[in-house]
Amino acid sequence: MAEEKHMWEAIELSRRNIQQGVGGPFAAVIVRNGSIVARGTNLVTSTNDPTAHAEIVAIRAACRSLKTFQLSDCEIYTTCEPCPMCLGAIYWARLKAVVYANTRRDAAAIGFDDEFLYHEFTLPLTDRKISLTQMLRHDALQVFQEWAFMEDKTRY
Amino acid sequence: MAEEKHMWEAIELSRRNIQQGVGGPFAAVIVRNGSIVARGTNLVTSTNDPTAHAEIVAIRAACRSLKTFQLSDCEIYTTCEPCPMCLGAIYWARLKAVVYANTRRDAAAIGFDDEFLYHEFTLPLTDRKISLTQMLRHDALQVFQEWAFMEDKTRY
Repeated sequence: MAEEKHMWEAIELSRRNIQQGVGGPFAAVIVRNGSIVARGTNLVTSTNDPTAHAEIVAIRAACRSLKTFQLSDCEIYTTCEPCPMCLGAIYWARLKAVVYANTRRDAAAIGFDDEFLYHEFTLPLTDRKISLTQMLRHDALQVFQEWAFMEDKTRY
Repeated sequence: MAEEKHMWEAIELSRRNIQQGVGGPFAAVIVRNGSIVARGTNLVTSTNDPTAHAEIVAIRAACRSLKTFQLSDCEIYTTCEPCPMCLGAIYWARLKAVVYANTRRDAAAIGFDDEFLYHEFTLPLTDRKISLTQMLRHDALQVFQEWAFMEDKTRY
């Protein structure tokens, strides 16, 4: 099955990633019309980039390669259910489907915060582990209104 | 007030970002010991990168500059309440505080999906707008177990 072949490739990439000491046990591939157009593995520690999760790395590579900021004709195969950061990126990139292997609970069981993050995001802002406070909304809102009334802009 | 000065700088960056046609009306600065160590604006459309939200751009710049993947002694000032992708990045980077100006509802009012995304993430996987399906968990789990038993690894 083609779908299984894509996931197998992602799993092999994730295995090589840890064996070579590049980053965590995660990889993803992006598929368009049945062919892989981009690959990504977790590069957080080797590139000093906390956003370099496999899915983000793969999405950025696919967009670079296809010269677009929307991947609406693509699917992503990832070795683990995406964390909220990566799921957010998947929505912003408008990918049409996600196929995953391990779950957020499997990730939690080996020490990653995915499940904690999903819970945290449902709490009121004042109950979060990282404090969120508001200031100067009135001034920032003026820029939002400037944007709303701009005619010559690229939407996304 | 120093805090207001940091937010003012972010608001001015967001204004320049739309006036120069670089991207959406969002900017962020990262502060350490009272000084700005990195700036970011929304670069989605000009760099073909759907992950290039202001907060992500600022976090990546701060980590590059400070040569670390953890910003636990830094705060982020952002002109809008972070979307789930950016809030995820903030948690993974271990920032100690978030200060924001506009809310997710203000962003929704000018056409951005932030509020939709927060709601979407609370739904069961099967009820989401982007389908999530699982396969080959057993095989992927073997790589997680390899990671769990590795002694020589960089945690993050």
